[in-house]
Amino acid sequence: MNYFSSDFKLGILGGGQLGKMLLAETRKFDIQTYVLDPSDEAPCKIACNHFVQGSLMDFETVYNFGKQVDVLTFEIELVNLEALEKLENEGKKVYPSPKTLKLIQNKGIQKEFYIQNNIPTAPFEKFESLENLKSKIQNLKLPFIWKCTEFGYDGTGVKVVRAISDLENLPNVECIAEEMIAFKNELAVIVVRNVSGEVKTYPVVEMEFHPEANQVEYVICPARIDDKIAQKAQEIALQVSKKFNHVGLLAVEMFQTQNDEILVNEVAPRPHNSGHHTIEASYTSQFENHLRATLNLPLGNCDSKVAGIMVNLVGEENFSGPVVYENIEKIMAINGVTPHIYGKKETRPFRKMGHVTIVNEDMKIARKIAEEVKNSIRVISTK
Amino acid sequence: MNYFSSDFKLGILGGGQLGKMLLAETRKFDIQTYVLDPSDEAPCKIACNHFVQGSLMDFETVYNFGKQVDVLTFEIELVNLEALEKLENEGKKVYPSPKTLKLIQNKGIQKEFYIQNNIPTAPFEKFESLENLKSKIQNLKLPFIWKCTEFGYDGTGVKVVRAISDLENLPNVECIAEEMIAFKNELAVIVVRNVSGEVKTYPVVEMEFHPEANQVEYVICPARIDDKIAQKAQEIALQVSKKFNHVGLLAVEMFQTQNDEILVNEVAPRPHNSGHHTIEASYTSQFENHLRATLNLPLGNCDSKVAGIMVNLVGEENFSGPVVYENIEKIMAINGVTPHIYGKKETRPFRKMGHVTIVNEDMKIARKIAEEVKNSIRVISTK
Repeated sequence: MNYFSSDFKLGILGGGQLGKMLLAETRKFDIQTYVLDPSDEAPCKIACNHFVQGSLMDFETVYNFGKQVDVLTFEIELVNLEALEKLENEGKKVYPSPKTLKLIQNKGIQKEFYIQNNIPTAPFEKFESLENLKSKIQNLKLPFIWKCTEFGYDGTGVKVVRAISDLENLPNVECIAEEMIAFKNELAVIVVRNVSGEVKTYPVVEMEFHPEANQVEYVICPARIDDKIAQKAQEIALQVSKKFNHVGLLAVEMFQTQNDEILVNEVAPRPHNSGHHTIEASYTSQFENHLRATLNLPLGNCDSKVAGIMVNLVGEENFSGPVVYENIEKIMAINGVTPHIYGKKETRPFRKMGHVTIVNEDMKIARKIAEEVKNSIRVISTK
Repeated sequence: MNYFSSDFKLGILGGGQLGKMLLAETRKFDIQTYVLDPSDEAPCKIACNHFVQGSLMDFETVYNFGKQVDVLTFEIELVNLEALEKLENEGKKVYPSPKTLKLIQNKGIQKEFYIQNNIPTAPFEKFESLENLKSKIQNLKLPFIWKCTEFGYDGTGVKVVRAISDLENLPNVECIAEEMIAFKNELAVIVVRNVSGEVKTYPVVEMEFHPEANQVEYVICPARIDDKIAQKAQEIALQVSKKFNHVGLLAVEMFQTQNDEILVNEVAPRPHNSGHHTIEASYTSQFENHLRATLNLPLGNCDSKVAGIMVNLVGEENFSGPVVYENIEKIMAINGVTPHIYGKKETRPFRKMGHVTIVNEDMKIARKIAEEVKNSIRVISTK
């Protein structure tokens, strides 16, 4: 297949920031792209070849979009699965396969899949509704993590339940209650696998989450952990990858427990926030490798050139309106600091507006600079 | 000035591959762009915000285009200088300034500028026409380099004259005859300078040219030369930069003579072929730094993370038509190899179609891989 400056068409479901960074790679290789997104202001609108505005959850829209392209991929899991299944049944190349997505899209099914496949994960119980959970609350040990099984994204649909009253404003939908793990570290490994089955893993990264918004605050690569733990995390990530039999990226989020066990938290079959630093820090970015994998090209080297840290840029509380990146010039004056601006014109509290990558030969210096960056830049509004 | 996700407009004259790689940076920062190019199939057409088709040499077209934007830059020197001058006189920010461009656009004026400013350069004579040169041929020592003073680009307008018969098919235009330097190395240093006068230099690179097409074959960073020579080359590049008082990038091409003198060959006030490796090898790419400079943002670190080598992808002789990158998958299987495809649908002999960057911690390995790349990939045509 000739992908480069040819009539080949890659379809991408979703036109957000992950798609935008993927388009940097399709432009580099001059691969023709079609993007579907509900928003007329999607970050992907600029650098794709053809933009289609429409719902990602509507069967007809996704099906008709898919018919137009040669290979179909996605940058968000919340897409119409039935349309993907029909397209795949009709012979369309859909990567990752809807079979993989089906196991991941619903967090209850995803957790059951881990149990069935002997993949270590935190104990949980599944409930068909919040009412159902409430009726069995006496069996649950507080605190626990409530997760709705579907349609959660970027920290929505997840809540720490410390008291029964925390359940009050939650939606009455299918959910799981997961044992809250007292972890030493949250880790992630991105695995990439192409159509022919070539597999590579990125180094283990270490994550810190914002306590309220449940969004990643720092991603640190490589994780500052024992080599043996890192090796174990990579082995488990590969095991998960093998079981899902995915094509493209699989971001595997894990807990390192107090006893140095590794428990799989959840996975995402697409470019992931925990891999943004790869643009500057790695020989091949996660976006380039996702593209290589879905087009069945040889995978690129996942090693790092230098240490990398990623800081998310999320909208400050109490600001809504046209965005201003306060002190962005100040952080750009520091060596090895690169802001990525996603192109959302309006900021809102906790909205993901961009990220900043810090790279340095010396991890300690990078970590120090990351804090300086975090304490300087603010995503606010003109009004 | 708020550049990020704002109404600010950057205008770029020229929509070729240099512009395309510059747009990767404007997309990263979400800076709004307007691009002017004569071709409906310009590589920049996809990732800019607004594309205007029109002549870069036509006064009205360039002037009217410039009126629409807040800051104007260019990715090619062959633009209407009078329009830029009028725009600047009317208060428009044009970077680099037409004053700088005027000294560079005409190679005769450029050479005279070096003499006036005590910048070492190869001896030359200027002639108002080829006829004029021919009439004084008895004063010239063969071989010499013939260069037309205007409109030369990518190896056109330059010829080695070894015998009088070599002059036969040359155009009867203003030209210079330059002494042919027996050089050890061709070197280049890219200098970046922002509006406020902050200046940084990239490491010295070493170049090898294709003997016939006069296009760069390998760019090697850092140059494998003595530290003292490298320091001298950087000092001279800085001196040239200071004299031109430019804003943005200035690529300074130089000869290292047999006696280790450094002679300035020519300069380009824009992103340059000798800096393409910076995308993968440097902390900040030349394109990002050109953008930072023209917007008066702090400059990024010009140091290298790893060794970098660049191989141009030019159309093979005897192939014209829809392009095919033969063996591109083979080279993508090698660690640290990244192809850049410029997006030209048709190949022609010696047409610049893309480039490949090879990065590695070890220069010797990179150099070996570069040769493997060069011997594998071929830019051919389906017809």
